[in-house]
Amino acid sequence: MRSNRESSIGVFDSGFGGLTVMKAIRHALPHENIIYFGDTARVPYGSKSPETIFRYTVENSDFLIEQGIKVLVIACHTACSIALNEIQQMFDIPIIGVLAPGVEEVVKHTKTGQIAILGTRATISSGVYQEEITKQIPHADIMAISCPLFVPLVEEGYVEHPVTETIIQEYLRPLRHKTIDTLLLACTHYPLLKNLIQKELGENVILIDPATSCADNIKELLVQKDLENPQKQSPNYQFYVTDDPEKFRLLGKNFLSYPIEYIISKPV
Amino acid sequence: MRSNRESSIGVFDSGFGGLTVMKAIRHALPHENIIYFGDTARVPYGSKSPETIFRYTVENSDFLIEQGIKVLVIACHTACSIALNEIQQMFDIPIIGVLAPGVEEVVKHTKTGQIAILGTRATISSGVYQEEITKQIPHADIMAISCPLFVPLVEEGYVEHPVTETIIQEYLRPLRHKTIDTLLLACTHYPLLKNLIQKELGENVILIDPATSCADNIKELLVQKDLENPQKQSPNYQFYVTDDPEKFRLLGKNFLSYPIEYIISKPV
Repeated sequence: MRSNRESSIGVFDSGFGGLTVMKAIRHALPHENIIYFGDTARVPYGSKSPETIFRYTVENSDFLIEQGIKVLVIACHTACSIALNEIQQMFDIPIIGVLAPGVEEVVKHTKTGQIAILGTRATISSGVYQEEITKQIPHADIMAISCPLFVPLVEEGYVEHPVTETIIQEYLRPLRHKTIDTLLLACTHYPLLKNLIQKELGENVILIDPATSCADNIKELLVQKDLENPQKQSPNYQFYVTDDPEKFRLLGKNFLSYPIEYIISKPV
Repeated sequence: MRSNRESSIGVFDSGFGGLTVMKAIRHALPHENIIYFGDTARVPYGSKSPETIFRYTVENSDFLIEQGIKVLVIACHTACSIALNEIQQMFDIPIIGVLAPGVEEVVKHTKTGQIAILGTRATISSGVYQEEITKQIPHADIMAISCPLFVPLVEEGYVEHPVTETIIQEYLRPLRHKTIDTLLLACTHYPLLKNLIQKELGENVILIDPATSCADNIKELLVQKDLENPQKQSPNYQFYVTDDPEKFRLLGKNFLSYPIEYIISKPV
């Protein structure tokens, strides 16, 4: 299906996490139609192998592009670290990830170059964030920590749960003897844990959630390529999920802060 | 492919957990060939919807049966609670689950009828265990608790991790004011947490891991149907996993207590 200026922006994530990015896009671009795809039947991605993550990312990108989207947003840091470059070469439409916006924000905010990155096992093992930050800040001292339980916690709705606090303390223990000034939340699920993470680190550390910066990048791209939606009526939001639409409706509103109406089941 | 007495027993689980059942089968039936299938690219099942769990279970059963197995063991409580009855009607070979052995053991051991069941969200919501136990002990007082983080913890190798202890305390909190005498580990991952669970509950509570009882049922069935392997040389163990074979090799030995040699990647 060919896309035009009225076509939707496609947003893909392994589950609910990408809704934090969709929220930012909706705020920055209130007239754009959006199709969200959450691969909830195969979540989590971050504990799986690069080969599996790559295959799932290609399949899901392909599905969204078939829906006639004008821009694809890969709102999953795990998928971006493993597959973004190749996906950008495989498909013909503009594809934006959360990797570059995250790195940009870190570089903009850090003063000391003492940086921490939190991500899934796959994201941290890929070394992509560490590499991209070091390209711009060669003296950067980066502590990269994989937090494999954060996605299950968030997908289970344990955002305010007491065990979440304990797990955060445990994962952030290596930062107790460091004096980082900036921490990148390199997973779209993690902003849901932002308050608890900030509490553990104290108010002096800047937490970077790349969602807003990613939405700004999309806005720039639409202007640049003359792809802004000329229609100014209320936009259309469509959701595809690979597992139960009802669970998505229930948990999704915590991420989006408004009810989700139109959810389609797309089994894989 | 037609099966015969020399054919393998097929064991299916969503990930590593079923290896606890395979270990028991190997012990009870040291001359039987075994094919193990772990759906590691789609794990966990327990947080997903009955429709998705059913579809995955049918696909995986079908795959194992195509390999010419003589008996199928569904070593995943989530899959059993959702799909066992239907799967038994769909396929022509004998199919054994972990549900009946678990219920049998509980009924055999409880004296007071004060019972707890720990399982995934899908297993507990299905109500199948509660129903089957109540059929045999009508006065049973059953506390069924879903522990959605146990599978991610075990699949991440956090078996001895301090956060695991905290999460166990949290999940078992409702049992503090009960006087249960028997607790069913209704998920094949949970026996890996047995020591910590026992520590939390005290030595007076009997923990039921249905693996041995399930292996005994398989042995009986083989005798009854004249399906025992007549060959007495060392048996063949084959493993199929849908995600990275290397991760399976690494973590799998904790479950099986011996090295896993022959692992085949079977992408889904």
